[in-house]
Amino acid sequence: MDYFNAPGRNHLFVPGPVNIPDQIIRAMNRNNEDYRSPAIPALTKTLLEDVKKIFKTTTGTPFLIPTTGTGAWESALTNTLSPGDRIVSFLIGQFSLLWIDQQQRLNFNVDVVESEWGQGAKLDVLETKIASDTAHTIKAICIVHNETATGVTNNLAKVRQILDSYRHPALLIVDGVSSICALDFRMDEWGVDVAITGSQKALSLPTGIGIVVAGPRAIEASKTAKSLRVFFDWKDYLKFYQLGTYWPYTPSIHLLYGLRAALDLVFEEGLENVIARHNRLGTATRLAVEAWGLKNCTQKEEWHSDTVTAVVVPSYIDSAEIVRRAWKRYNLSLGLGLNKVAGKVFRIGHLGYLNELQLLGCLAGVEMILQDVGYPVKLGSGVAAASAYFKNTIPLIPSRI
Amino acid sequence: MDYFNAPGRNHLFVPGPVNIPDQIIRAMNRNNEDYRSPAIPALTKTLLEDVKKIFKTTTGTPFLIPTTGTGAWESALTNTLSPGDRIVSFLIGQFSLLWIDQQQRLNFNVDVVESEWGQGAKLDVLETKIASDTAHTIKAICIVHNETATGVTNNLAKVRQILDSYRHPALLIVDGVSSICALDFRMDEWGVDVAITGSQKALSLPTGIGIVVAGPRAIEASKTAKSLRVFFDWKDYLKFYQLGTYWPYTPSIHLLYGLRAALDLVFEEGLENVIARHNRLGTATRLAVEAWGLKNCTQKEEWHSDTVTAVVVPSYIDSAEIVRRAWKRYNLSLGLGLNKVAGKVFRIGHLGYLNELQLLGCLAGVEMILQDVGYPVKLGSGVAAASAYFKNTIPLIPSRI
Amino acid sequence: MDYFNAPGRNHLFVPGPVNIPDQIIRAMNRNNEDYRSPAIPALTKTLLEDVKKIFKTTTGTPFLIPTTGTGAWESALTNTLSPGDRIVSFLIGQFSLLWIDQQQRLNFNVDVVESEWGQGAKLDVLETKIASDTAHTIKAICIVHNETATGVTNNLAKVRQILDSYRHPALLIVDGVSSICALDFRMDEWGVDVAITGSQKALSLPTGIGIVVAGPRAIEASKTAKSLRVFFDWKDYLKFYQLGTYWPYTPSIHLLYGLRAALDLVFEEGLENVIARHNRLGTATRLAVEAWGLKNCTQKEEWHSDTVTAVVVPSYIDSAEIVRRAWKRYNLSLGLGLNKVAGKVFRIGHLGYLNELQLLGCLAGVEMILQDVGYPVKLGSGVAAASAYFKNTIPLIPSRI
Amino acid sequence: MDYFNAPGRNHLFVPGPVNIPDQIIRAMNRNNEDYRSPAIPALTKTLLEDVKKIFKTTTGTPFLIPTTGTGAWESALTNTLSPGDRIVSFLIGQFSLLWIDQQQRLNFNVDVVESEWGQGAKLDVLETKIASDTAHTIKAICIVHNETATGVTNNLAKVRQILDSYRHPALLIVDGVSSICALDFRMDEWGVDVAITGSQKALSLPTGIGIVVAGPRAIEASKTAKSLRVFFDWKDYLKFYQLGTYWPYTPSIHLLYGLRAALDLVFEEGLENVIARHNRLGTATRLAVEAWGLKNCTQKEEWHSDTVTAVVVPSYIDSAEIVRRAWKRYNLSLGLGLNKVAGKVFRIGHLGYLNELQLLGCLAGVEMILQDVGYPVKLGSGVAAASAYFKNTIPLIPSRI
Repeated sequence: MDYFNAPGRNHLFVPGPVNIPDQIIRAMNRNNEDYRSPAIPALTKTLLEDVKKIFKTTTGTPFLIPTTGTGAWESALTNTLSPGDRIVSFLIGQFSLLWIDQQQRLNFNVDVVESEWGQGAKLDVLETKIASDTAHTIKAICIVHNETATGVTNNLAKVRQILDSYRHPALLIVDGVSSICALDFRMDEWGVDVAITGSQKALSLPTGIGIVVAGPRAIEASKTAKSLRVFFDWKDYLKFYQLGTYWPYTPSIHLLYGLRAALDLVFEEGLENVIARHNRLGTATRLAVEAWGLKNCTQKEEWHSDTVTAVVVPSYIDSAEIVRRAWKRYNLSLGLGLNKVAGKVFRIGHLGYLNELQLLGCLAGVEMILQDVGYPVKLGSGVAAASAYFKNTIPLIPSRI
Repeated sequence: MDYFNAPGRNHLFVPGPVNIPDQIIRAMNRNNEDYRSPAIPALTKTLLEDVKKIFKTTTGTPFLIPTTGTGAWESALTNTLSPGDRIVSFLIGQFSLLWIDQQQRLNFNVDVVESEWGQGAKLDVLETKIASDTAHTIKAICIVHNETATGVTNNLAKVRQILDSYRHPALLIVDGVSSICALDFRMDEWGVDVAITGSQKALSLPTGIGIVVAGPRAIEASKTAKSLRVFFDWKDYLKFYQLGTYWPYTPSIHLLYGLRAALDLVFEEGLENVIARHNRLGTATRLAVEAWGLKNCTQKEEWHSDTVTAVVVPSYIDSAEIVRRAWKRYNLSLGLGLNKVAGKVFRIGHLGYLNELQLLGCLAGVEMILQDVGYPVKLGSGVAAASAYFKNTIPLIPSRI
Repeated sequence: MDYFNAPGRNHLFVPGPVNIPDQIIRAMNRNNEDYRSPAIPALTKTLLEDVKKIFKTTTGTPFLIPTTGTGAWESALTNTLSPGDRIVSFLIGQFSLLWIDQQQRLNFNVDVVESEWGQGAKLDVLETKIASDTAHTIKAICIVHNETATGVTNNLAKVRQILDSYRHPALLIVDGVSSICALDFRMDEWGVDVAITGSQKALSLPTGIGIVVAGPRAIEASKTAKSLRVFFDWKDYLKFYQLGTYWPYTPSIHLLYGLRAALDLVFEEGLENVIARHNRLGTATRLAVEAWGLKNCTQKEEWHSDTVTAVVVPSYIDSAEIVRRAWKRYNLSLGLGLNKVAGKVFRIGHLGYLNELQLLGCLAGVEMILQDVGYPVKLGSGVAAASAYFKNTIPLIPSRI
Repeated sequence: MDYFNAPGRNHLFVPGPVNIPDQIIRAMNRNNEDYRSPAIPALTKTLLEDVKKIFKTTTGTPFLIPTTGTGAWESALTNTLSPGDRIVSFLIGQFSLLWIDQQQRLNFNVDVVESEWGQGAKLDVLETKIASDTAHTIKAICIVHNETATGVTNNLAKVRQILDSYRHPALLIVDGVSSICALDFRMDEWGVDVAITGSQKALSLPTGIGIVVAGPRAIEASKTAKSLRVFFDWKDYLKFYQLGTYWPYTPSIHLLYGLRAALDLVFEEGLENVIARHNRLGTATRLAVEAWGLKNCTQKEEWHSDTVTAVVVPSYIDSAEIVRRAWKRYNLSLGLGLNKVAGKVFRIGHLGYLNELQLLGCLAGVEMILQDVGYPVKLGSGVAAASAYFKNTIPLIPSRI
């Protein structure tokens, strides 16, 4: 099944699943184990403690659910809400769209606030709704921190500020799938009630753990929420947390050891350094796009994403052809434009355990492809812009000084 | 996190997660990939085709859901049934109990047919219910093929025969978690409508794929079933099957390559040879238990399981102490007795890519532990019984003749 | 090239190459690195320090030569001796025979002291020679600590005592290939001048590092030894040790990281515990052989080896058939009888990171094979003898108490 | 021992050891095996056959010696020559220098033909010597195909032509360490008598196999060559080839499986495509150097190497600082200047399983470093030159069309 082999390394620049560091690959290179022996609970205990650090919470309760981001969404919703509950939800791209679809199919009453794709969540509309909702009919605000389809980062601090201004008790439920552990995210400070991410994003593991962290108000809400749930039910986890065995059903031994290695890598580099590195990679990518004379799908600087950049191509080019050609000629994996922006944007994911030269290789590849498809880019221009920025901002590698 | 290290290999004899063959470990030793490139759909296509072979179905539709067995159960139920639907479900041990708990929490009307633990499903009761249900109020029969907690295998052919005798249209939903790919299982021949298994059982992968195969009547039922579902919804899969991209959300690249390797191993050995090998291992284990003068938790030969043996210990012994000691002194992982049989049985899992000498090492260990905890077993007696049987039944290894 | 696949794990009981612990497999699962970066010298430095501990020397200088045991032999000889030098060398089995062949082809004047295969080195003959060599024409004593072909361990303390009694300055050159890191070996205390081992033996790595440790007198001898050598020349290593870059030519990055993991495992278990474990495994194997009514090739208890047992079969049986059948029917790898004992013995290697249940599985397999080839062994008898011994001697696993 | 960790992948551009493809890493991720079972000889047989293909020989005999390139040199020399034999050897850089040092220490009579570093072997001098050597006192010509220290490729066809012109019987012994399987090499056509390479070069394995292929005349010479040798003696190999067991001592199981995977990768891509890819990478690197306004250490185009480029830095820059900074700031591993060119050149290795975007990332890194150390390079200039060339020459990836 390796008949799509190509010489050299695949340059993986989709915004997930992302490159797995060798340290994590090694940690997962093992046999299964009995998850009921003392070893796995002891390991799990460290994971639950340390996962909280990357969410910047001390009061949250983490659940490491054997599922994907889609399942993590479902867990966040069904444990805290009851059918018919009113939710305000922001539609700003394909992933918020899919989440809203899920919310509707789960029979919530979804108050959709739509933005043009490329713009952030309309927080002024939120403020209006919150201001007028004195009866507190709104039970939850659902928002993606970083919309992976358009490369838009929303301002969560602002959301919290709006809720606080009106002393509105709605739960704040955040999709941090392509943000947490890469962008600045502060669960406790921002009063996020449920935050989720997936193992295959900034944590750089294979797909398979939907990480859900529930704050105290969310845990409280879960006691009365009437949505049906079993697999995703936090109650079963909490019961086994009490028992000290942690798992209501069989976890993936591999992902547990992998997550341990992933967290160790983050702490070794330092979470703030990880975030700063993502900022360097994001900034450099945007400078390259600018040098190419192309537009960032993200319309304002305040929404710029440091984990994914959606690049708008001229109307005479099909962005899907760029992605196909990247794979077929350069062993480069870029992200497709999805749904409304299909054919119009291609995406460069720059999250995970990446360094500057990896990104520059990718940018050099994109330049050749842009020429291939007829866009008159100057070769080396994006690389020059990005590397001029890098040159002045990359620190020495601390462990190598 | 390796501070539970012990010299030599861990002898993993819990009934799941089971030992992963080196070939599969190798296949999973890799970086992530873009799941939207042509490679992953091409790989997935082969998996969907080949998974059907181990279920012995040509008409079923497989779903490789990123979840555990618990999630696979939920997928089977919510896609085919509506809240309030009447189900006949057999309680014969801890896993059927958990499934019934799920069925009840999902608001089905569960008609529980309970057996003493150690006995199979009461099919005579089923016949009575079916015979009297001329109004066809029973929408589904839910049955575990092999109850992992007690080592009891149910007779599915008989279930089908009962349904057919009365031309009863109830769906037959089978938990094959600890049977499929190890025991004789015939989805089409037995008219199973939904069958599930988990990657960490006989397929010998890490946990993470809940494999659900839906027959034509189940697919039909899914079109009208009213249970809420999103993550587990077959509809999303079917839509992407049509598109040829296969995945409604991110799969685990590792488990896909691992599953490919797992299926290749099964076909290389031959599915019938795999089943015969499990029969040899199961038979030998039972002969050892007999030689030790202990009772099999499974009360009749017709229910004997070839994947797991639950051994009843004398009342003056705590079986949990056997399991603890196995791990602490012999680096041997045995299965605990669960719930009603906690403290009363320990379990030897003998499923997966195991050979005879591995089992004999385990049996020799059990003998020492039995002496340790005060049971007067003769050392070597179980090994002698098992190896006398093996000696006459092990074939030469075909690839090595 | 995996068409010799067989279900389950291979039971590897040849006396080398031995089973590689998963921790070491993981450590070697990596890309190459620049061996001239600061990382590899820093790693190498720890290896050179720690290797000395398993040789029990503080004054020795280790060389980690990219070669096999045969190359390590050549390095030991050519660096310390000149063509024509008189050596006393003991022929007690196939490996000492091969070493003597090498000594002769390298133009040394070899004074061969031969024993019947199954007996140890004739130290009384050594004493006579040393006593009479008042002119000190004997430049070196070459002796295998543990003859892998017959399972005979020589008494090195006694050799030192003889040399000391006569104040004889001959160098003591020891092949510790199948002893060091498994048997009690004391380089400094026994005044061993050069000791060698191979990575694929008790250290449990792949083949590829010939470990040579030279004491101060050997280093001194190397300055004047006239044997031609380049690849094996210690001088080049010593030059790079001075420079702090350590490597005169490219080492295997994988084996360096693997050796680090191997040493960590030894220190974690404790070297004395490792040696005690080998003693338990060796003793149990001998008890099984006795229970089977078979003879140990090693003729006296004082020579018994704790790393390999050569079992003599009755004359009507071809021991090679046992080895063939073990592999073809039981996925068990046993050692052949070599040269003079070909067809007459088979060998059970019990060195490396093995535990008791692994050995018992092997013994159970041997019992079945013995019956297969017509030897009237009682099944379970060897296992019973070995496990009776184990039951009273295995400690709890310290990390798991 | 991973405390030199740095974010993202190491960019490994030293001319060996080179990047190991994931397919090979996977193939080597395994336990040891009994090398005397039928499996290893069967595997070895395929390796010996297939290795000949990458040397382009049908008449050669390959030896896969557990050693490094230095050991392979020694094997080539000691098996074919006798002490005192006259050799013509070309000194053109550090590796030819080391080989000559070896030749001298092995007591051959070495007729050194020296070139300025950066120039190829002086074949006109060879012609003069050959022409005048009517007595055939010259027993062998020793020449590196590609001098790794300076990036100089010698013209082997021309050497053969000179020997043939004068019907001179000297053996032609070629160091193909950094050429074979990357540059055009034709053992039979060019009448090469012994050719060697190392596993860690273009074959992309860890260090550990010295591959020596001996033509018929070399095999003949080995029967009378008087140099002492044991470990490196072809005779022992030939004896075991006859027996069909292939190995006179324990090989590395891992490297054998790794070599199988390496050869499979070469044949899958096609040897001519591999060579063409190296030519693309070499040409692009040279174009970048030119764009930077720097000199290639290689003084004439005819000697340009497609596997390594030595870049001359201005006299006011210490090239070692470039290498240090590459590692400390950019996680980029470049080759140092060695010996006469220390401080004056740095080296970019572009051999092995590399693709174009990997090289472009490296070039972008070099540009930043050049600025860092005070050389006024225009960022993006080398990348632009290289990618302009790539854009017109990279084929679609055949397996992905």
